[in-house]
Amino acid sequence: MSKQLKIGLVGYGFMGRAHSNAYNRVPNFFPEQEYKPLLKAVCGRNGEAAKAFADQWGYESIETDWRALVARKDIDAVDICVPNHLHKKIALEAAANGKIVLTEKPLAMNVAEGQEMCEAVERAGVANMVWYNYRRVPAVTLAKQLIDEGRLGRIFHYRANFLQDWTISADVPQGGAATWRLDAAAAGSGVTGDLLAHCIDTAIWLNGGIRDVNAMTETFVKERIHADSGKPEPVGIDDACAVLCHFENGSLGLFESTRYARGHKALYTFEINGEHASIKWDLHDLHRLEYFDHRDEGRVRGWRSIHVTDNGGEQPYMDRWWVPGLQIGYEHSFVHQAADFMASLEKGEPCSPTFREALETQAVCEGILSSAKKGVWETIAG
Amino acid sequence: MSKQLKIGLVGYGFMGRAHSNAYNRVPNFFPEQEYKPLLKAVCGRNGEAAKAFADQWGYESIETDWRALVARKDIDAVDICVPNHLHKKIALEAAANGKIVLTEKPLAMNVAEGQEMCEAVERAGVANMVWYNYRRVPAVTLAKQLIDEGRLGRIFHYRANFLQDWTISADVPQGGAATWRLDAAAAGSGVTGDLLAHCIDTAIWLNGGIRDVNAMTETFVKERIHADSGKPEPVGIDDACAVLCHFENGSLGLFESTRYARGHKALYTFEINGEHASIKWDLHDLHRLEYFDHRDEGRVRGWRSIHVTDNGGEQPYMDRWWVPGLQIGYEHSFVHQAADFMASLEKGEPCSPTFREALETQAVCEGILSSAKKGVWETIAG
Amino acid sequence: MSKQLKIGLVGYGFMGRAHSNAYNRVPNFFPEQEYKPLLKAVCGRNGEAAKAFADQWGYESIETDWRALVARKDIDAVDICVPNHLHKKIALEAAANGKIVLTEKPLAMNVAEGQEMCEAVERAGVANMVWYNYRRVPAVTLAKQLIDEGRLGRIFHYRANFLQDWTISADVPQGGAATWRLDAAAAGSGVTGDLLAHCIDTAIWLNGGIRDVNAMTETFVKERIHADSGKPEPVGIDDACAVLCHFENGSLGLFESTRYARGHKALYTFEINGEHASIKWDLHDLHRLEYFDHRDEGRVRGWRSIHVTDNGGEQPYMDRWWVPGLQIGYEHSFVHQAADFMASLEKGEPCSPTFREALETQAVCEGILSSAKKGVWETIAG
Amino acid sequence: MSKQLKIGLVGYGFMGRAHSNAYNRVPNFFPEQEYKPLLKAVCGRNGEAAKAFADQWGYESIETDWRALVARKDIDAVDICVPNHLHKKIALEAAANGKIVLTEKPLAMNVAEGQEMCEAVERAGVANMVWYNYRRVPAVTLAKQLIDEGRLGRIFHYRANFLQDWTISADVPQGGAATWRLDAAAAGSGVTGDLLAHCIDTAIWLNGGIRDVNAMTETFVKERIHADSGKPEPVGIDDACAVLCHFENGSLGLFESTRYARGHKALYTFEINGEHASIKWDLHDLHRLEYFDHRDEGRVRGWRSIHVTDNGGEQPYMDRWWVPGLQIGYEHSFVHQAADFMASLEKGEPCSPTFREALETQAVCEGILSSAKKGVWETIAG
Repeated sequence: MSKQLKIGLVGYGFMGRAHSNAYNRVPNFFPEQEYKPLLKAVCGRNGEAAKAFADQWGYESIETDWRALVARKDIDAVDICVPNHLHKKIALEAAANGKIVLTEKPLAMNVAEGQEMCEAVERAGVANMVWYNYRRVPAVTLAKQLIDEGRLGRIFHYRANFLQDWTISADVPQGGAATWRLDAAAAGSGVTGDLLAHCIDTAIWLNGGIRDVNAMTETFVKERIHADSGKPEPVGIDDACAVLCHFENGSLGLFESTRYARGHKALYTFEINGEHASIKWDLHDLHRLEYFDHRDEGRVRGWRSIHVTDNGGEQPYMDRWWVPGLQIGYEHSFVHQAADFMASLEKGEPCSPTFREALETQAVCEGILSSAKKGVWETIAG
Repeated sequence: MSKQLKIGLVGYGFMGRAHSNAYNRVPNFFPEQEYKPLLKAVCGRNGEAAKAFADQWGYESIETDWRALVARKDIDAVDICVPNHLHKKIALEAAANGKIVLTEKPLAMNVAEGQEMCEAVERAGVANMVWYNYRRVPAVTLAKQLIDEGRLGRIFHYRANFLQDWTISADVPQGGAATWRLDAAAAGSGVTGDLLAHCIDTAIWLNGGIRDVNAMTETFVKERIHADSGKPEPVGIDDACAVLCHFENGSLGLFESTRYARGHKALYTFEINGEHASIKWDLHDLHRLEYFDHRDEGRVRGWRSIHVTDNGGEQPYMDRWWVPGLQIGYEHSFVHQAADFMASLEKGEPCSPTFREALETQAVCEGILSSAKKGVWETIAG
Repeated sequence: MSKQLKIGLVGYGFMGRAHSNAYNRVPNFFPEQEYKPLLKAVCGRNGEAAKAFADQWGYESIETDWRALVARKDIDAVDICVPNHLHKKIALEAAANGKIVLTEKPLAMNVAEGQEMCEAVERAGVANMVWYNYRRVPAVTLAKQLIDEGRLGRIFHYRANFLQDWTISADVPQGGAATWRLDAAAAGSGVTGDLLAHCIDTAIWLNGGIRDVNAMTETFVKERIHADSGKPEPVGIDDACAVLCHFENGSLGLFESTRYARGHKALYTFEINGEHASIKWDLHDLHRLEYFDHRDEGRVRGWRSIHVTDNGGEQPYMDRWWVPGLQIGYEHSFVHQAADFMASLEKGEPCSPTFREALETQAVCEGILSSAKKGVWETIAG
Repeated sequence: MSKQLKIGLVGYGFMGRAHSNAYNRVPNFFPEQEYKPLLKAVCGRNGEAAKAFADQWGYESIETDWRALVARKDIDAVDICVPNHLHKKIALEAAANGKIVLTEKPLAMNVAEGQEMCEAVERAGVANMVWYNYRRVPAVTLAKQLIDEGRLGRIFHYRANFLQDWTISADVPQGGAATWRLDAAAAGSGVTGDLLAHCIDTAIWLNGGIRDVNAMTETFVKERIHADSGKPEPVGIDDACAVLCHFENGSLGLFESTRYARGHKALYTFEINGEHASIKWDLHDLHRLEYFDHRDEGRVRGWRSIHVTDNGGEQPYMDRWWVPGLQIGYEHSFVHQAADFMASLEKGEPCSPTFREALETQAVCEGILSSAKKGVWETIAG
């Protein structure tokens, strides 16, 4: 017997679209799952726009006040896709109403908020998850498997960066619906929470906890027109961030994120070097995993470019899609995460990353910003 | 006002899934279009399997006899996703019933059949289209634009291949639902109709008509178990095919397709060399287009790897998807083709490739098989 | 005790430089070899230019008439680096004088000439070799080892091309010292003898004899100024050539060469697909070999990019150069061939490819040109 | 009239070979230069090995004591290719004897030594140079030209790393002729002086001075057998080093070097991101430069892979070698540097990097090691 999971979505921007698409695809590609998403309502301040979005994606109804949405009896799960400064408020009230709570990353504006959110969902005993979607790119999940199997041996190095170039022009404003990510009041931080948080989430997942960090940040464009006031205002976010760190397993980490790397649109890459093998991945070609195994015979040893599309094999998630050689794309990471979440409900288990797990990434990001401000190494509380 | 296009799908294999997914996504990603697909019925001989498929993809009903399906009053368009030897029969009856007819490629078993099909749909005056989906990969559509703008200048060379490796083992059977592509009675030909036809369709679209061909084919595994008889039977298809040709514009063509190229799952590549510029594309990284422009300054001239994900620009179809840097995949080519077909209905125009256009590819394939058999150059009738 | 091999070089163009460099480097990088090249004389019609070349490369003396050179008592080996139409004459007289004879590729203008040359050196009992240098690129030699070890299993496909773009402009003249390769009287053929011959030589070496061929050629620019007459004259060479063939081992071959592939300067690539493994190589990144082994575990199977610079391993020739990771270039293929030739003298063995071996490539090229002319399959005489 | 530059080489290891090859090639590839190197003497403690080396590379004589070498009247230039702890002593005495002094990188064990060396050569008024050879890889020199022409606009980011994997095994000893780079007493530091110094030298050359640094280092293997004592001794070098920094132009720098990055043999890469354009380079494919220019038309914008082999163009140094498409390798960077040094003598100008220029890299490396030790930002003295 199938069960409906009645979704209430808050926010209909870029992430609202990605999540809505994911919910729509789960029954097509994971038909055996017990839970089926039912798109009950979408909430946005602009009723007309919300209505158009609901029509486009199949939501049954709309709300223009998130408090109304989270109070609705016919909603099982609240999915938060609004700017970061609203995550806490909505999550707390949703949890208090006994709703399942999902939220876009980063979890919160800071650790204190995140801590409140964790306590709220745990107290309420409701399922919860943060959309760090890149874990569910099949190539990344495959990397996780290889590492967990011990194939890399002792780990020496982890390096990752997330490079974009969309804010180089000083004419890009801050604030407003399209560019709230440049407004410190709405986003909390700049690239650290937006881009580096992805790198940190993946890193902790793949390589374990981070012990301490040492960072620098920079704001290249010091003043931008604010969409609300229409006037130039100081820019409060970090435009770029670079980090040295130690992992708990003794390996060294190096991270960088920026929106000023001309030529890169969303170049999230990571590499991990172990005693026996190394792995590389790159979001611009997300269907490939690069793998080097020193145990291969010397004469023919080389980096392998694994085209992760071979559903005849056992590559994660790929049995759901097409035939070998045919690649999937960005949106599929959300489909996988939505499907995994539904599956976890079925099993009565938490679905990773929970709020509590995502709090660890929040703590690292907060340590990074603090380190950059003070110019010192910061220890991450365990 | 939106209008429903009531779809009846015949066949629920690999292509049935790809088309069903496409229909489902058009309203999400092309919401402004007047026509919306309505999945009315799916037809398959196994009623239970058809029912499961219908549930999975949202078809309202099922049929187990295609004659019943094409006779239904509540169906506007029949979409043929069954083996090649059934295309003609179904298309003819659907057209006779006034249905729009869509069919998977290749159009037919041979030119004679294809000719009948063209005449049927033209006589009935019904819209029609063949699913040569690779034209609608954004990078390929971009290639078309660049060529049509004359950027390449006089064309000298066109080369393409489609390489797979899934039939190397002599244990792969022929016939049956999973391996009908190896059965000459069901498929008409081997790689020529299955793989090379894609190459030819794209080539004609990008570079114009083909004047003559000279080909060789090979059947590496001479005998395979037939799924119907359970006994070894001679293999009637071509396992590999290679072709020399002249295009009408005076350029030289070189084509190859095989299922015996170890290491390649679905490596469809093409390259076109013009006086001023050249273009390369590769299905294994379908979101990239390689472009070389000799007019670039000499010192910094090089092949450009265009990541076709930049919806801020004007790359075809990419304004429909995510944000710059985030790639789409294989299935999107079908979404685009379905959307374009709906749009063409709205405008009352044919949607390319029509049956008539696809007949040209059929003629080239037939010429290729004949040339290979006789060992001579074959002229393609204009 | 070291022995000197006294070299007389005929011609001081591009190949004269490449060979001279090779001779100079052998003692540095193969110091243990018994034979050391001694650059005794270089011959060119222009005495002043010959003198300058001699000074630059360390030749002790010059000649302005090749007949004088091949008659000199103090010359052991004559190395022929002049246009193709002169190969035979010089080789015959050198052999008659008991000289070792080396010649640039292709061996001759045609099979008849090549046959005479083979007979001459064999009758004279003198060592001989043709400079098909690409066999000695370490990555290519490694390919040969892997194939000879049987790692690929049964071979299905061989494809190669050699793409250039330097003659696209109709202003490039024919004839003369710089552009004799465009003059049929001096070169014998166009891309077939110049570029495709390399592909054929490698192919026969790696994959065995060719049974029959079917080709097309094209001359895109029909008339060019001749450097001698200063007037437009019909172009007699093939600008482009494409070939289908069968190898004696039952595999299919596909070859192409052209000087009209915009964006490619010297893109010699080959790929060989076997039952178990496949290999690819590309002259533009000559220090890498791409290798796919189907016997690798499925989940992590992929094309390996082997950086052939690891002298700690057993990659051919690389123990002679630098440290792992540091690549060599084009010129090293000649150094290796010169060193191998010296080593073969020491052992009293022939050094491959001999004139006789190169005659096989000549026969294939002649078959190709004939097939293209007549439009039929041509059998290659065994 | 040509002039001889009489060279005395101290040390005949890896670098001794690379320099000797460079001297030998200059007259072949830069024949118009006035100064010709004459290999007068090589010095090594083992006379037999020195003799063999002299025979192999064409040195006229040997010495077994460097003091004898630098005192010889018939030597114009002393080239120091011995471990770092000997650079100062030899350089000082050579300068005192009025010799030109060339030394392998890094300049010295530390800034204090480097300062003494600068003063010595400046006081003596002798030409001097440090072999930071990667500046003369044509692709890197091209990068320099593009940056100096202002094509990148304001610079935001510079990132570089130098990754190797040869010391992962704890069985690799420290000290002795083959592994002195692991012995702090001979090398001064580990990867910082050996690998990172290259990155810093290039960075300063391309992007200007470094204002401050913040670094971490690690020694993964704490104890290794010492080649001298034959017993395990603590390892004093840094196995890995990562650095954050600010350049004087306001851009952010990120550097990393290690010998524990499995799969990388000598992967020196750098990338520089500017307002208008970005550049990437990679030593494993040193003949290519990656270039992205935002001013390219949006639809066809992409990273260009520039094959730096087109001597018909104006790519630096490439007019000296072969024909377009044919790559050179690692050793050529030394040939170019030797040729440039000879040319600078002819013009009476210093040849970059001089000792004084290399002292700046030494200061940055010293700041890095100090920062890593103390865990604080270190300002680099201007």
